[in-house]
Amino acid sequence: MKKLNTSPISGMQELLPSEQAIFDNFKRKIEEVYHRFGFLRIETPLIDRSEILFAKAGGETEKQIYKVVKTEETADSADQALRFDHTVPLARYVAEHENELQFPFRVSQVGRNYRGERAQKGRFREFYQLDIDVVGRNSLPIEYDAEVISALVSALEELKLPNILVRISNRKILSGFLEALNLNHLSGEIFSIIDHAEKVPEEKTREKLVGLNIGDENVVKITTFIGICGSLEGVQEKFTELGIENEKFSEGIEELKKVVELLKLQGFDKQVSVDMKIVRGLDYYTGTVFETVLSEHREIGSICSGGRYENLAGLYTDQILPGVGGSIGLTRLFFLMRELGLVEENAEKSVEIAIIPFSEEHFNYCFELAKKFREKGKSVDLVFVDKKLSDKMKYASKVARFGIVIGDNEIKTGKLSIKNFETGEQAEL
Amino acid sequence: MKKLNTSPISGMQELLPSEQAIFDNFKRKIEEVYHRFGFLRIETPLIDRSEILFAKAGGETEKQIYKVVKTEETADSADQALRFDHTVPLARYVAEHENELQFPFRVSQVGRNYRGERAQKGRFREFYQLDIDVVGRNSLPIEYDAEVISALVSALEELKLPNILVRISNRKILSGFLEALNLNHLSGEIFSIIDHAEKVPEEKTREKLVGLNIGDENVVKITTFIGICGSLEGVQEKFTELGIENEKFSEGIEELKKVVELLKLQGFDKQVSVDMKIVRGLDYYTGTVFETVLSEHREIGSICSGGRYENLAGLYTDQILPGVGGSIGLTRLFFLMRELGLVEENAEKSVEIAIIPFSEEHFNYCFELAKKFREKGKSVDLVFVDKKLSDKMKYASKVARFGIVIGDNEIKTGKLSIKNFETGEQAEL
Repeated sequence: MKKLNTSPISGMQELLPSEQAIFDNFKRKIEEVYHRFGFLRIETPLIDRSEILFAKAGGETEKQIYKVVKTEETADSADQALRFDHTVPLARYVAEHENELQFPFRVSQVGRNYRGERAQKGRFREFYQLDIDVVGRNSLPIEYDAEVISALVSALEELKLPNILVRISNRKILSGFLEALNLNHLSGEIFSIIDHAEKVPEEKTREKLVGLNIGDENVVKITTFIGICGSLEGVQEKFTELGIENEKFSEGIEELKKVVELLKLQGFDKQVSVDMKIVRGLDYYTGTVFETVLSEHREIGSICSGGRYENLAGLYTDQILPGVGGSIGLTRLFFLMRELGLVEENAEKSVEIAIIPFSEEHFNYCFELAKKFREKGKSVDLVFVDKKLSDKMKYASKVARFGIVIGDNEIKTGKLSIKNFETGEQAEL
Repeated sequence: MKKLNTSPISGMQELLPSEQAIFDNFKRKIEEVYHRFGFLRIETPLIDRSEILFAKAGGETEKQIYKVVKTEETADSADQALRFDHTVPLARYVAEHENELQFPFRVSQVGRNYRGERAQKGRFREFYQLDIDVVGRNSLPIEYDAEVISALVSALEELKLPNILVRISNRKILSGFLEALNLNHLSGEIFSIIDHAEKVPEEKTREKLVGLNIGDENVVKITTFIGICGSLEGVQEKFTELGIENEKFSEGIEELKKVVELLKLQGFDKQVSVDMKIVRGLDYYTGTVFETVLSEHREIGSICSGGRYENLAGLYTDQILPGVGGSIGLTRLFFLMRELGLVEENAEKSVEIAIIPFSEEHFNYCFELAKKFREKGKSVDLVFVDKKLSDKMKYASKVARFGIVIGDNEIKTGKLSIKNFETGEQAEL
């Protein structure tokens, strides 16, 4: 009988130990890939100054920020809030520690972030994000964009996700394109129309464009532009057909080519597709932008996204810090993978051996035996409960992969037999 | 020039990448030991219902709890707060998931907790705690107390801390002792005097006892009791000399003996000392209690403590859930270790190899080379910056242990030479 409501707050993921083991395993795999790609780990506090967090939030995000107050409020505890992403604290961190860091700064951040979104299935208010960024000082070669995407794709592949597709574009192409059409003044509206193009019927997108009063020819051109996607070879012709003469446009195409070619060189031919529908919000990104979907489950949306930004920390320092980064939202991804049946729920138990003393006089022997196994790196449970052997075996079979019963005979002869709980097989040790 | 204050909020630890690598390494080592001891990992949300958190807090802690509110407050976001330890969320978790867990439930929790303490050096408002607990249903054998302490000591030994000393007592001994002296009604006061005995001169403790008006004989007995410490053999005689006949007293001594003997069996003779000055607060613990100090640095206080409790989740369920647990406060410990010079600051760099292309035409070769190393599990940085070779080498030597320069000659001959940045040695690969 429960006395208080003990369910976790809505929007917070809470897993059973067997599920947690799978989640942790995914997290570790991603972290290992980030490490192989030379990213250095940092951790920023979950609580930061409100002036820092609100300065960069804006719009919907601002409304979702959790503010933090102490029960006995004191002057220095006011005006604090929980971070809602890793990018804002990273900007503060880099500005604060600029003189102690090596640039380009390859950095990874793994931790929970907080957004008080409206609660709904598959939306989380507390969620893990696993970010990587490369931050340069004054400049940062385009090759780093390929590095970041390579690391993210390699990490996702470790999770054995089926048919990952990185959809990639470059914001300079769209900006240059609109410049050439003299439609700069409508770029906000057009960015937004493109950003939503996949979520509405094609006719609706056309209507919205027509509503901008930009002339039939421009509507056709933009519609054509939105449709450009596929392999590098295929899209280059389509870009040429648009007949655009603009420096930024060409620069964007060159950058995109470079990044895609480098990704191919890494063996990611099949996983990469150029796609002009990828815009990624409005303000932040200035070059490469990308999203990642599962080809057969496009309905779940992007599982990993990011891009290039011109200046990370303009609010905190005069130093120009261009960067490129991306993020895997693991809490949501894990939820989706389970929904899609992509998580092997009966994954291996994390405890290897349960040692089961037959009765109390065998405890000491078991303690010493456990010590030996543990010194060899094995994970060992010791079952001291005062129950029938069959009950102890039942417990052991639920927590561990193997079991060893210790009684008088075992201690006298030193001959131990180990039981595989999965197969039921018994073997001498 | 800074535009906003970019320092982390006071009381929050923020490390440079090289320090973070050491911290993470310590954390990983402790986690590995917990795993070897068969503890299953769980994670509870950082944000929980205030009614849950405040129900168990009380006193100073209650004033330190951070409450959480959304900027646009909605009904279901009110009354939430940040957890201040792992025990309260564990109680909620076990009550909530009781029917899906195996008991005894060996559980580990690694994460940050929050207390809005007065800011001062070495005190943290955001701090990592690495907890283990074994939670039984209805009963839990005393052997688990030894298991928990073994795991904690083994974990601390991994950090290469000098001369760890676990000071151990059992609350039943003191309770039984006071029962026998008919001083139950003053147990709160006497517990508190003992708890503070080490922080004040001996004379002061005596004065406080005299002030209780309990008679000279009792003052002498309690003073003698407080002084009992040392090896199991040594203290047993002193217990006998007290001339106490009380069931709880004897039961406590039996439990203490059992736990200490099992710890000896694990090879922890030198690390364990019986000590009646160990009380651990007032309410929570009911049996075994322990604190851990560094023998040569007692001034820093306890670095790992815990004990046995009678019922974990009485506020949430009618099921009796006795348990035993302990915790390592890693943020504080890491701070203290650095203060004491116990952290090797020039620890190995986490990145193994930096690949340095001589110029742009060597980029592709470098990408492919990096891929090969990474597939072998090596951590590799690729240095694409457009700078002089000497500047690139300088960067590489700061982030990585080894460097490989790739130019025309290397690509033509396939002969690569690798430089050890520490020794300056160059070798063929």
